[in-house]
Amino acid sequence: MKTALYPGTFDPVTYGHLDVLERAADIFDRVVVLVAANSQKEPLFSADERVAMLRRSVRGRRNIRVDVFDGLLVSYAKRAGATSIVRGLRAISDFEYEFQMALTNRKLNRRITTVFLMPHEKYTYLNSSIVREISRLGGNVSQFVPPHVRRMLTLKHRPGTRRR
Amino acid sequence: MKTALYPGTFDPVTYGHLDVLERAADIFDRVVVLVAANSQKEPLFSADERVAMLRRSVRGRRNIRVDVFDGLLVSYAKRAGATSIVRGLRAISDFEYEFQMALTNRKLNRRITTVFLMPHEKYTYLNSSIVREISRLGGNVSQFVPPHVRRMLTLKHRPGTRRR
Amino acid sequence: MKTALYPGTFDPVTYGHLDVLERAADIFDRVVVLVAANSQKEPLFSADERVAMLRRSVRGRRNIRVDVFDGLLVSYAKRAGATSIVRGLRAISDFEYEFQMALTNRKLNRRITTVFLMPHEKYTYLNSSIVREISRLGGNVSQFVPPHVRRMLTLKHRPGTRRR
Amino acid sequence: MKTALYPGTFDPVTYGHLDVLERAADIFDRVVVLVAANSQKEPLFSADERVAMLRRSVRGRRNIRVDVFDGLLVSYAKRAGATSIVRGLRAISDFEYEFQMALTNRKLNRRITTVFLMPHEKYTYLNSSIVREISRLGGNVSQFVPPHVRRMLTLKHRPGTRRR
Amino acid sequence: MKTALYPGTFDPVTYGHLDVLERAADIFDRVVVLVAANSQKEPLFSADERVAMLRRSVRGRRNIRVDVFDGLLVSYAKRAGATSIVRGLRAISDFEYEFQMALTNRKLNRRITTVFLMPHEKYTYLNSSIVREISRLGGNVSQFVPPHVRRMLTLKHRPGTRRR
Amino acid sequence: MKTALYPGTFDPVTYGHLDVLERAADIFDRVVVLVAANSQKEPLFSADERVAMLRRSVRGRRNIRVDVFDGLLVSYAKRAGATSIVRGLRAISDFEYEFQMALTNRKLNRRITTVFLMPHEKYTYLNSSIVREISRLGGNVSQFVPPHVRRMLTLKHRPGTRRR
Repeated sequence: MKTALYPGTFDPVTYGHLDVLERAADIFDRVVVLVAANSQKEPLFSADERVAMLRRSVRGRRNIRVDVFDGLLVSYAKRAGATSIVRGLRAISDFEYEFQMALTNRKLNRRITTVFLMPHEKYTYLNSSIVREISRLGGNVSQFVPPHVRRMLTLKHRPGTRRR
Repeated sequence: MKTALYPGTFDPVTYGHLDVLERAADIFDRVVVLVAANSQKEPLFSADERVAMLRRSVRGRRNIRVDVFDGLLVSYAKRAGATSIVRGLRAISDFEYEFQMALTNRKLNRRITTVFLMPHEKYTYLNSSIVREISRLGGNVSQFVPPHVRRMLTLKHRPGTRRR
Repeated sequence: MKTALYPGTFDPVTYGHLDVLERAADIFDRVVVLVAANSQKEPLFSADERVAMLRRSVRGRRNIRVDVFDGLLVSYAKRAGATSIVRGLRAISDFEYEFQMALTNRKLNRRITTVFLMPHEKYTYLNSSIVREISRLGGNVSQFVPPHVRRMLTLKHRPGTRRR
Repeated sequence: MKTALYPGTFDPVTYGHLDVLERAADIFDRVVVLVAANSQKEPLFSADERVAMLRRSVRGRRNIRVDVFDGLLVSYAKRAGATSIVRGLRAISDFEYEFQMALTNRKLNRRITTVFLMPHEKYTYLNSSIVREISRLGGNVSQFVPPHVRRMLTLKHRPGTRRR
Repeated sequence: MKTALYPGTFDPVTYGHLDVLERAADIFDRVVVLVAANSQKEPLFSADERVAMLRRSVRGRRNIRVDVFDGLLVSYAKRAGATSIVRGLRAISDFEYEFQMALTNRKLNRRITTVFLMPHEKYTYLNSSIVREISRLGGNVSQFVPPHVRRMLTLKHRPGTRRR
Repeated sequence: MKTALYPGTFDPVTYGHLDVLERAADIFDRVVVLVAANSQKEPLFSADERVAMLRRSVRGRRNIRVDVFDGLLVSYAKRAGATSIVRGLRAISDFEYEFQMALTNRKLNRRITTVFLMPHEKYTYLNSSIVREISRLGGNVSQFVPPHVRRMLTLKHRPGTRRR
């Protein structure tokens, strides 16, 4: 059985992530979405909140699992019997960082291959930080994230607001 | 009447910004320079100081106005009747971020077009953060910013220094 | 009256070109689409065919004119009283070439400003050569070019084919 | 059974291609290497020679097949029941072209996903044209291509030379 | 005597830095490695620790000196009689920043030339921050830094750990 | 004595090349400018003409020599006792190609180091092909090449024209 990891911060998950994830789930027998818990950046959502948003987003997909991790990706891969790491590749700035990570992971474990998938072009320049920024300024993010994520953003930025 | 917005942090305004602004003012009937007040980065100059530096820099240009804003750019554009956003485009790293912003703004309001102008090549790699850094280290920034901005930088970094 | 030139090879014109052109026509009082006649590359369509395809594509747009030229762009700009050159900017490889041309044109005539517009993201990676290639291999190009251009491509690649 | 296509010109196949191919064969149940026959560039080796060099290079790998094609990639994919296209991604210039092809293929057939794999870093900047150039100038290409490909290059460039 | 400066943060020094340094020492009569003391980022190692790690790494190389500085690079260059600045150039993101610094330094002192050297391809994507990250997560960094730097990283991240 | 090679096509030499060359001649004891004779592209000027234009451009510079070569660069370097190759680095598209060549040369001869120098920013986007194009269309190239090169271009493109 071929297992791939799809690691990220997912703060929050966007339609771009979900598009990549769906493509990965078509290629591999099993995909584990991995929420990075111990990033040094202060996230908007806790690891638990991010896991919950992801789980709800992939409900019904039988070969997708969501987990949290806080160590080296290559160690998790070893334990999980995974030899592929999936990453979305959107644009130049991604490219450099992703290649650096891919090479580093391969240096740490020769057997690991990073697989880059391209999200739909309508998500080409979408990322989580722009979603957080638009939401913080009161903009409408319904083109970028699923409804339940939009509600979480509203609660975070405007705690007094009633759920719509 | 065709109105364009020229948004930015302008912390502080440089000759590169002023070069882009002048080109924009030749193309559009009216240009509104918009100082971003609520950026999440801690700026060196307050929004008021940045507005003042810009106003002094464009004194006498009748179709340029300076304003401050702290919400979504597309909402300001709607209120101001502007359908163009002007951005300087210097180099690769700009390119990605600018495209992301341009696409996002267009997603939020279909009528908005982002217009990229290239500053003079002698300002190709100039930006505000490098000006702040050189000034902080006591270097001479007179090639990069107007005299009144240079004086503001000196006062900020060396408060005891007499104005020259 | 503000006039802009929109130069290119247009071999053939695509929906990406037309998207940029429409945005330019919203900003400038008049836009002249300029078909480069004397390019050193051997085009698929003659200059006359390319002009005809463009004219048909912009029929009804009163402030757009189509012309052919075979000299220096800056000389044409001077004769036409144009001080802006419009270019679409899609991706990195464009970026370098376009900047080189923009800087060169400005060196040849200080008053010229190049204005970069971004086509809709669904045309991000579209260009004429890929359209020619797909058409040559018998693929369907109806997502990329207007119907009359598609017919011209079919006639060129499969002369015996009946017009559909 | 998951089938992927790995299309290219392979003029000639290099260790970089073989590294990507091996990673693909670990991920997919079956990989078909597709030699583009009707490229408009004049290749150094005929399609038959390129197929032969590839076949010899993958001898013994049971889930890799080599074929030639001269139409649209998406049509071949449909006939072969393949929904993934594998491409090596080495550097920036690749990136743009590859994204363009990937988006175009997806426009022509929604079900197609392009999977990018990164060759080992020691092949980062290796490509077929540099191998042809070095060989033409009499340089040693044994670090870049398998021995049987090196011999084919020598025969092509120095037909009088005895096989070593 | 031709003197070059090799400035950086070196937090910590990696094999990539040492590879560039060795090439520089072959070209110039004297190379001064300059540790930036007053960076605004909070470093993991103090300036003294970084100088010590570098000194130990270049022990025995007679034309390499290590120093610390906290002002403008061009002022140091003037005092040291250096007209060249050496920088490693690995990848795109470097490229932009490095060009910006090089142009700025040349603006501040016409006589300064920046010399870019490419580290060995096996260090193409290596940088100090990825080394700190792997070490923080308990990974093995012995492929990236000399043994004495590895020990310093272990002490920093796991103070209770016995030196190995 | 430290010798560097500065290889290129120089079809024709531009002020950008001469700027890089001058910086190289300040760093190395001796610089050999190498005109590539056997490029597969059809040049505008013969190798002899290109050598003559370069020789005239560097007249009086005692540590610069001009030569022609038609084999592998690394073989020439070995014969000339040179271990450095100088290349100008202007922009992204250069970057990729130059890195590829630098890595390949190093693979062919471990002792070779490629040294990248940045021309003055006013030559950032200047190259020989744009100079040929402007000259062919009758434009003024006096900002881009020395007077004697400009005259050669005029003679080539307008053979009947009197020398000015």
